[in-house]
Amino acid sequence: MIIMYNRVTNQLLDKIISIVGNNEVIIDERIKEYAHDMTEDYNFPPEVVVKPQNTSQISEILKLANEEKIPVTPIGARTGLSGGMLCVYGGIGLSLEKLNQIIEIDNDNLQATVEPGVITQFLQNEVEKLGLYYPPDPSSKGSCFIGGNVAENAGGLHAVKYGTTKDYILNLEVVLPNGEIIQTGANTLKNSTGYHLTQLLVGSEGTLGIITKITLKLIPLPKYRLLLKANFTSPYDACKAVSQIFQNNVLPSALEFMEKDAIDFGQKYLHSLIEDTQNIGAQLLIEVDGNHLDNLYQDIEKIYEVLLKFNLLGEPILADTYEKQEEIWKLRRCLGHAVKGTTIYKEEDTVVPRAKLADLLAFVKNIGKEYGFQSVCYGHAGDGNLHVNIIKNDLDDKTWKETIPFYAIPKIFEFTKKLGGTISGEHGIGWVQKNYMPIMFNKTHLDLFKGIKRLFDPNHILNPGKILPN
Amino acid sequence: MIIMYNRVTNQLLDKIISIVGNNEVIIDERIKEYAHDMTEDYNFPPEVVVKPQNTSQISEILKLANEEKIPVTPIGARTGLSGGMLCVYGGIGLSLEKLNQIIEIDNDNLQATVEPGVITQFLQNEVEKLGLYYPPDPSSKGSCFIGGNVAENAGGLHAVKYGTTKDYILNLEVVLPNGEIIQTGANTLKNSTGYHLTQLLVGSEGTLGIITKITLKLIPLPKYRLLLKANFTSPYDACKAVSQIFQNNVLPSALEFMEKDAIDFGQKYLHSLIEDTQNIGAQLLIEVDGNHLDNLYQDIEKIYEVLLKFNLLGEPILADTYEKQEEIWKLRRCLGHAVKGTTIYKEEDTVVPRAKLADLLAFVKNIGKEYGFQSVCYGHAGDGNLHVNIIKNDLDDKTWKETIPFYAIPKIFEFTKKLGGTISGEHGIGWVQKNYMPIMFNKTHLDLFKGIKRLFDPNHILNPGKILPN
Repeated sequence: MIIMYNRVTNQLLDKIISIVGNNEVIIDERIKEYAHDMTEDYNFPPEVVVKPQNTSQISEILKLANEEKIPVTPIGARTGLSGGMLCVYGGIGLSLEKLNQIIEIDNDNLQATVEPGVITQFLQNEVEKLGLYYPPDPSSKGSCFIGGNVAENAGGLHAVKYGTTKDYILNLEVVLPNGEIIQTGANTLKNSTGYHLTQLLVGSEGTLGIITKITLKLIPLPKYRLLLKANFTSPYDACKAVSQIFQNNVLPSALEFMEKDAIDFGQKYLHSLIEDTQNIGAQLLIEVDGNHLDNLYQDIEKIYEVLLKFNLLGEPILADTYEKQEEIWKLRRCLGHAVKGTTIYKEEDTVVPRAKLADLLAFVKNIGKEYGFQSVCYGHAGDGNLHVNIIKNDLDDKTWKETIPFYAIPKIFEFTKKLGGTISGEHGIGWVQKNYMPIMFNKTHLDLFKGIKRLFDPNHILNPGKILPN
Repeated sequence: MIIMYNRVTNQLLDKIISIVGNNEVIIDERIKEYAHDMTEDYNFPPEVVVKPQNTSQISEILKLANEEKIPVTPIGARTGLSGGMLCVYGGIGLSLEKLNQIIEIDNDNLQATVEPGVITQFLQNEVEKLGLYYPPDPSSKGSCFIGGNVAENAGGLHAVKYGTTKDYILNLEVVLPNGEIIQTGANTLKNSTGYHLTQLLVGSEGTLGIITKITLKLIPLPKYRLLLKANFTSPYDACKAVSQIFQNNVLPSALEFMEKDAIDFGQKYLHSLIEDTQNIGAQLLIEVDGNHLDNLYQDIEKIYEVLLKFNLLGEPILADTYEKQEEIWKLRRCLGHAVKGTTIYKEEDTVVPRAKLADLLAFVKNIGKEYGFQSVCYGHAGDGNLHVNIIKNDLDDKTWKETIPFYAIPKIFEFTKKLGGTISGEHGIGWVQKNYMPIMFNKTHLDLFKGIKRLFDPNHILNPGKILPN
């Protein structure tokens, strides 16, 4: 279907200004900042950036846009990795940055209600002061918005034990494309009252409604954390160790994998030689948390038992203080920027059942050989979530723009599916992965997706061009 | 909308027999068994009961029914509490009892794939043999089907720590009303690939598709459990203690509430005087679980600290063996049957943020006084989930059939909503609660529900008459 959208006219602009005020509308060069997120090198500016300050302003803007058939793309902190906020049809870029209040931290019920523009780490810090914990923590937690986390169903380091964003969302206030406002659920831990619109909206990437309030579940903050770093000579051994750790009855709070090339990229980016990577195949970072330190040391012992079955490079290193742990995490957390900042690349967000990780990695490396590309792999191994970064290096443009996306990547995704996996674990589909959706889903299934989109947004004004294949 | 369905003709019956075989079609008096579940005293027989043995038979039956506009109602173990399986328009009762295989327990990935007719406790026992745990355990776990649990998003005793059925479902094979088959997700712990049809199907009460395979997440089985029983003089004190236990940094694996009248009903049903209830206001059952017994005793100490702030009746009793614990749980587990078996009643499945439980209970009791009914309340207090049983006793028929359902119950539900709660925590809406849905949801929201139903099932053949209000 080809949709003919209208352009933002001066007349419409006047109406928008009358809703949000002059200061909250951007049409000058500052608009460039709103043309991209962290996804590769895409750039699609909106015609106008609008920064509403509350739900009712958003409702009015959507009513207007819906009547006039103007695309509206919600914009968060622009840290996304699938191009979910790219204004590919121009229109209104609806920035949620002014809705940035923690409305309530309800210590009696271990819940918080927040606006979508709250920075994830800010929320985490605030609830920590009360001894509470909001676990989802994507690598961008220091700058990303909680609303974006909900839209993409973000994961992060601690999803392996604590689950992803969807597991913490109890209730949402949502403005539908026609301007009407609904509550998707209730502020309760359980809910069997009709179809789960809350869970349908989580991960819907801003295509079904604008999320304006989020009620989320909190849990007690675990008191202690221990972090173990182990270097393997073989990356496949590292992958195999992952599922064995769980089988030895340990549930780590984080379990991260970095292959040699990822460590190299990270060290170069940090200008810091932490590891001599010459003989390293891969590194695992394994964290346990809880309220009883002696039990955590028992868990570490059990993890050791597993590690010692493999060829390790040197002794595993235990970080038992926050400072030592942060020192180790620094390398892992910088990898996204390290790859993005130093090369042209494409990032795939494959996820498989965790015991299949070695198979996936081997397949990616073989495809790399076949098509002549370097890949840099790292990710949340405990979840089976492998971020595959395909590096351009000196590949010619035709290979980069045609062979890789049309032949190599589909093969990786087909194999991912064959292993029981899927093509996005936590980044979302957005703009960059949408044309791979037919690998995962048959026509019947895609038609259901399209039907859901049409039901919520019959004029297709909301974040058009995302999720659904062309 | 009034839908004119066709009746099951002899010709159609022949076609059905040609699909599933003569032995799997019931049209004689055995059909009576399929006319009801555990919901109050409702009886709606299907015209024919069909017991397909695999997905492709289900696909063929649905194609047929869809073409001929015959209602199809999926039937599980008939333990439901909202009338989800009542064949209110006759038609085909599609029993899933022959799809009863555990297809795989995947110890490497801590997953299992099962058919919908597997009894929940059977699955739990099988995975326990491997040191694994599938937590959702409704009171009917010894007879209910896992497919029904998915359809209703069942909870149970351990939801407070471990979540409800939705938190364990990774992927579903679903036959759509037109006979087409989809996989809703992937066998992965994380998934940000398109709209979450898995989560939309969970809790959809058999109105969107027939679930034929379920891939679920397993976790390591905790080694130890301790159970504490405490009698309170005031039921409101018992409710207040609930949220204070969490605030004292304990996450119980179960936290159950029974008011005096519930205990009385249970003891009468069991012909056993376990408690002298004369001065009891309510009882709390508080369980903790984990792998380190010493820590569990520390948790019990912390719970004690909270309990001692209230007026208790006697010392709390600690059950530290499986046998002693089962002895205590027996009374709690029989309550559904105890109420159902001895009286005419209506059961409401209210749920609120847990710190609001005392407010909800007080309101229910006041409404009881106002309308002259006895209520028997118990439930999963840790979740804020209160089962309110309204007892007929000697109320006249007009009061029972009009005043209570049209005036008293709506007031309870309106108050529940006002507290941030909702009208079903784990039983579903089904047949008995559907006309209360406008209390929870505005027209826009209900229209979305209707649109989702129409998208999946344009001929409205699947489980008609459920969830959506008349």
